[in-house]
Amino acid sequence: MQQKMNNKPFCAAILGATGYTGQELLALLARHPRLRASFVSSEAEAGQPAPGGQLSYVRAEDVALGEVDIVFTCLPHGEAEPWALRARAAGARVVDLSPDLRDGRHGAVYGLPELWREVIRGADLVANPGCYPTGILLALAPLLRNGLVDIGRPLIVDAASGVTGAGRSAKRDLLFGEVAEDYRAYAAGNTHRHVPEIARGLAQLAGGATTGRTVPFVFTPHLLPVRRGILETLHVPVVPGIGAADVIMRWTDAYADEPFVEVWPAGLPSLRTTVHRNVAALGAGDVAGLEAPLVTVVASFDNLVKGAAGQAIQNANLMLGMCEQEGLPR
Amino acid sequence: MQQKMNNKPFCAAILGATGYTGQELLALLARHPRLRASFVSSEAEAGQPAPGGQLSYVRAEDVALGEVDIVFTCLPHGEAEPWALRARAAGARVVDLSPDLRDGRHGAVYGLPELWREVIRGADLVANPGCYPTGILLALAPLLRNGLVDIGRPLIVDAASGVTGAGRSAKRDLLFGEVAEDYRAYAAGNTHRHVPEIARGLAQLAGGATTGRTVPFVFTPHLLPVRRGILETLHVPVVPGIGAADVIMRWTDAYADEPFVEVWPAGLPSLRTTVHRNVAALGAGDVAGLEAPLVTVVASFDNLVKGAAGQAIQNANLMLGMCEQEGLPR
Amino acid sequence: MQQKMNNKPFCAAILGATGYTGQELLALLARHPRLRASFVSSEAEAGQPAPGGQLSYVRAEDVALGEVDIVFTCLPHGEAEPWALRARAAGARVVDLSPDLRDGRHGAVYGLPELWREVIRGADLVANPGCYPTGILLALAPLLRNGLVDIGRPLIVDAASGVTGAGRSAKRDLLFGEVAEDYRAYAAGNTHRHVPEIARGLAQLAGGATTGRTVPFVFTPHLLPVRRGILETLHVPVVPGIGAADVIMRWTDAYADEPFVEVWPAGLPSLRTTVHRNVAALGAGDVAGLEAPLVTVVASFDNLVKGAAGQAIQNANLMLGMCEQEGLPR
Amino acid sequence: MQQKMNNKPFCAAILGATGYTGQELLALLARHPRLRASFVSSEAEAGQPAPGGQLSYVRAEDVALGEVDIVFTCLPHGEAEPWALRARAAGARVVDLSPDLRDGRHGAVYGLPELWREVIRGADLVANPGCYPTGILLALAPLLRNGLVDIGRPLIVDAASGVTGAGRSAKRDLLFGEVAEDYRAYAAGNTHRHVPEIARGLAQLAGGATTGRTVPFVFTPHLLPVRRGILETLHVPVVPGIGAADVIMRWTDAYADEPFVEVWPAGLPSLRTTVHRNVAALGAGDVAGLEAPLVTVVASFDNLVKGAAGQAIQNANLMLGMCEQEGLPR
Repeated sequence: MQQKMNNKPFCAAILGATGYTGQELLALLARHPRLRASFVSSEAEAGQPAPGGQLSYVRAEDVALGEVDIVFTCLPHGEAEPWALRARAAGARVVDLSPDLRDGRHGAVYGLPELWREVIRGADLVANPGCYPTGILLALAPLLRNGLVDIGRPLIVDAASGVTGAGRSAKRDLLFGEVAEDYRAYAAGNTHRHVPEIARGLAQLAGGATTGRTVPFVFTPHLLPVRRGILETLHVPVVPGIGAADVIMRWTDAYADEPFVEVWPAGLPSLRTTVHRNVAALGAGDVAGLEAPLVTVVASFDNLVKGAAGQAIQNANLMLGMCEQEGLPR
Repeated sequence: MQQKMNNKPFCAAILGATGYTGQELLALLARHPRLRASFVSSEAEAGQPAPGGQLSYVRAEDVALGEVDIVFTCLPHGEAEPWALRARAAGARVVDLSPDLRDGRHGAVYGLPELWREVIRGADLVANPGCYPTGILLALAPLLRNGLVDIGRPLIVDAASGVTGAGRSAKRDLLFGEVAEDYRAYAAGNTHRHVPEIARGLAQLAGGATTGRTVPFVFTPHLLPVRRGILETLHVPVVPGIGAADVIMRWTDAYADEPFVEVWPAGLPSLRTTVHRNVAALGAGDVAGLEAPLVTVVASFDNLVKGAAGQAIQNANLMLGMCEQEGLPR
Repeated sequence: MQQKMNNKPFCAAILGATGYTGQELLALLARHPRLRASFVSSEAEAGQPAPGGQLSYVRAEDVALGEVDIVFTCLPHGEAEPWALRARAAGARVVDLSPDLRDGRHGAVYGLPELWREVIRGADLVANPGCYPTGILLALAPLLRNGLVDIGRPLIVDAASGVTGAGRSAKRDLLFGEVAEDYRAYAAGNTHRHVPEIARGLAQLAGGATTGRTVPFVFTPHLLPVRRGILETLHVPVVPGIGAADVIMRWTDAYADEPFVEVWPAGLPSLRTTVHRNVAALGAGDVAGLEAPLVTVVASFDNLVKGAAGQAIQNANLMLGMCEQEGLPR
Repeated sequence: MQQKMNNKPFCAAILGATGYTGQELLALLARHPRLRASFVSSEAEAGQPAPGGQLSYVRAEDVALGEVDIVFTCLPHGEAEPWALRARAAGARVVDLSPDLRDGRHGAVYGLPELWREVIRGADLVANPGCYPTGILLALAPLLRNGLVDIGRPLIVDAASGVTGAGRSAKRDLLFGEVAEDYRAYAAGNTHRHVPEIARGLAQLAGGATTGRTVPFVFTPHLLPVRRGILETLHVPVVPGIGAADVIMRWTDAYADEPFVEVWPAGLPSLRTTVHRNVAALGAGDVAGLEAPLVTVVASFDNLVKGAAGQAIQNANLMLGMCEQEGLPR
């Protein structure tokens, strides 16, 4: 597939468009100057109008995969993989927002642009990162790559996510009457399905591909009574002599030219500073009185934007040869 | 002051009764069969009726301190200390809900009944524990006392509190428009004012009074968009061979006869299971894949009840010779 | 069935105990001194423990209907009717919390104690009122009975309910992600299923049984992003010369001895003043500048307590010959 | 002041920029292609950086009023008037977002573009409408202008607003701990300060300028536990033979070319469908069984956008000769 001439718009299909991620993608594409949704699929709502008033949902098998430039698969775990392959076979580029391809199967490239931009540019199949890993990897990459982390001690991550991260299926546990005025840990003990993805990413950043090094960590997600947003509190074991100022300096160096990473020179970002924006905000602080030093790091971002649909558009922009920032709210 | 005969009710005064803690105390006393509020003070609302329709607020200096059996001081940090001393001098027993006396000054006894019940019984001046320390100390006491904790590695505590924990003063940061849909860490880096209280309690439980031992920890509180409740996620470094099952067994042993500590045999308690109740719920789980073992512990309780007003009534019940459970919702 | 001697406790069964109403009833019975739950049914959770730790859910057909004094049916519309009849046939008294019997079929008595207490006392089958009608009828009864309402003009009721009023079934519309930060009218145009019940009640209070008079009204419910509570704003057409002061006086006369109706002498009650309490609060205010006078009335109450489970216990207390207030939080 | 050549950007000052309205305006201007904020004032935060990272707050008297094209006054009631006059005297055009000038004093033009666009275009001083009146007037204008409303019977409006409508000053009543899980009517009985503004607007639309006709109404606002959004439920007395279909048809005719009014052909808009957008959504439904017909109308819009800052930008766009839609999210 060649690049469009004359700034002609590209066409996209969203498979599984009625979930929170699909809806966010649809809303973002409505503001994108050069990429527009041509097909939105839903088995349950086929025939009904989609928000925005331009399109109606169709069944996935009625999407003309060969006529679009890019396909976003927002299907449930297990259902996405065959559709992603089918879309690629039909000649479309594919960004898969499910967890299906994040282990690299079928040659899928892991789509975290700030860390691995060059391979994304040439890819025809990109696995969009999970929301939780996005913040953790962006926060730790400059530290691991520069040897600031003591990987002999475990990294502790307590993360809290808004409810849209759990999807839009009708489940009793996600009813307003259950979630409001509540807060809970879930999938504790490194049992969350993002754990292998986090482990792979951290190992790769630590140079593990060549050395076999892994980064020990404890990841405990919590469910917040808010609609959107993730806040991750990381307790990072650092090598002697290193403190929050060094962490901030490394981030500043690494992300100086990155429009979608916001380094806080002081203070810790709160959740609401980043919602509705394609931004991950990072802050760090020292902890007094410890023998082996830890730095407290907070990463805040919108699970539906930088943690999903916005990042997917970054990837699509790269894959289609557009400016990476095109159409994205900062 | 001698014990009442014939189950005659005791009389209480609440100094600083219009904050969230004072209001909760007033509501709890309304259901207490043997302790009733006789005076409620407020400088700003003096002369106005208090909830429940029985009492009007008076200025603190108009409270007849010598005529009540017990005084609860719910005044701001710094203002409570002189009033607590004045009330004791007038012959009343005193439970101070401020942080002023928690370092033991003036002979104040630290009022965590499940851990130090006997000294409370005979006390005339009790410092009611802070909300955050209550959960941490209840969770760790049986582990520290039995040598299950590796105090060579730091304990990590990420805690989240409902907004009533920050008081009822009109501050812009606590407006609904600021807090709703937000979540944030605050007082990170062991700077929260409860940190010395936690440190003292942990050291004492570790036998530090005789050995000088301290327990290293990192305490990071977060502000939750809910009205009430605290959920503390603790990453406890345990000695080799110890896991969540051992933790649960020690809790079960220690708290078998405690009506206000709820040990979960499996799973982790969520925040809403404990609100409006004078209960701290504890749960524990293992973490896979670490060299040096950690156990994930969750403590959940209502910051206004077991974390403040309910615990104050436990203390008052003990000090006045009543059954400790009298008038408390489980 | 004769009255118990010696204050021996009565036994209750709750059919359909896992919904919000059933759960509230279970929690209230746990504090009731003379009525205790012996059976709690759930088809989906049979065999699992119910909250409180004393009982496990059983299937409805495994409840020994003949061994309990009273059966509360909290089943969905349509399923309650046969079970209510079966329970009565087995010798139990029955309070049905579904809408099935509110038209009086099978001799069911409409269970609004403050208005029709005497017939409830002798009944073996009581239809517990719907939540919305409870507030409207309590607010209007003293006005209609005393001829203060101009029934030539329509009563306008805009009501807002917390989400638990919509039940605990897993429906996408009730997910936290859908309800939070939202507010909406639903079932507008007098299409809500409580409309016939409201019409019947108003007509009866207006003396319609003998005169055929009906009371025209417009009822528009709205869904609030809170867990519990109903606030109803009524615009009441009054006869010339009547104002809010008269309304308040009539309420005060009618409800002077009613522990569960709270008349506000001034101001309008907010939702949160009544949650977790078995109370309906009423307030009224004048409207300036109208030719045909209207009085603004606000009724506030907890949909799960005075609007459902608490009122059901009032009815049960009456039917079993206990004090009506027994076990109810004010 | 003449129109800019070459699409050069216009410059704006925001006086009182730290409130919710000022902050929203600042955020919207950051996305406006031709109008940018040059000065943002705050007495309390002078010297501190404003969101967006480009500007710092200055004291109002340090704003160079003569150097900007337009001044937005977001100051409290009473403080805005002198600053608006001062800004106009300095040669700037002025949009005042306070209630100070809405009665037309000093020649101020009432800035509801969809209804009175032409006079706004030429104005140098525009009073931006209040949030509540915006929805009511947009909903009723086509009905009053076409004689569909029976002004012999009162219009009933029950409105519900998110908390940001009450401002960002630190008041105890607006704390999260007070507002969460609550809902209340306030300023009932036509005592809200928007009542005269609504009365003026309705009378003008009914032709009252020439006939003296007024439109009787009852306006009762309520405080919702959400951050933003207003939903107004109107019970509109219509002349015989008129129903919801006629209402929708008149809206459709009147607003066919209006980008910022969204007419729902069926159903009623919920609050969340309009937040973060410069849109007022309108829906209507019939009410069965009334002698004198009423149509239920719902108007939904974002109090901070179409109800304040967005509408202010519409006005500024008109006053500066730009396309009215420039920079506004739909």
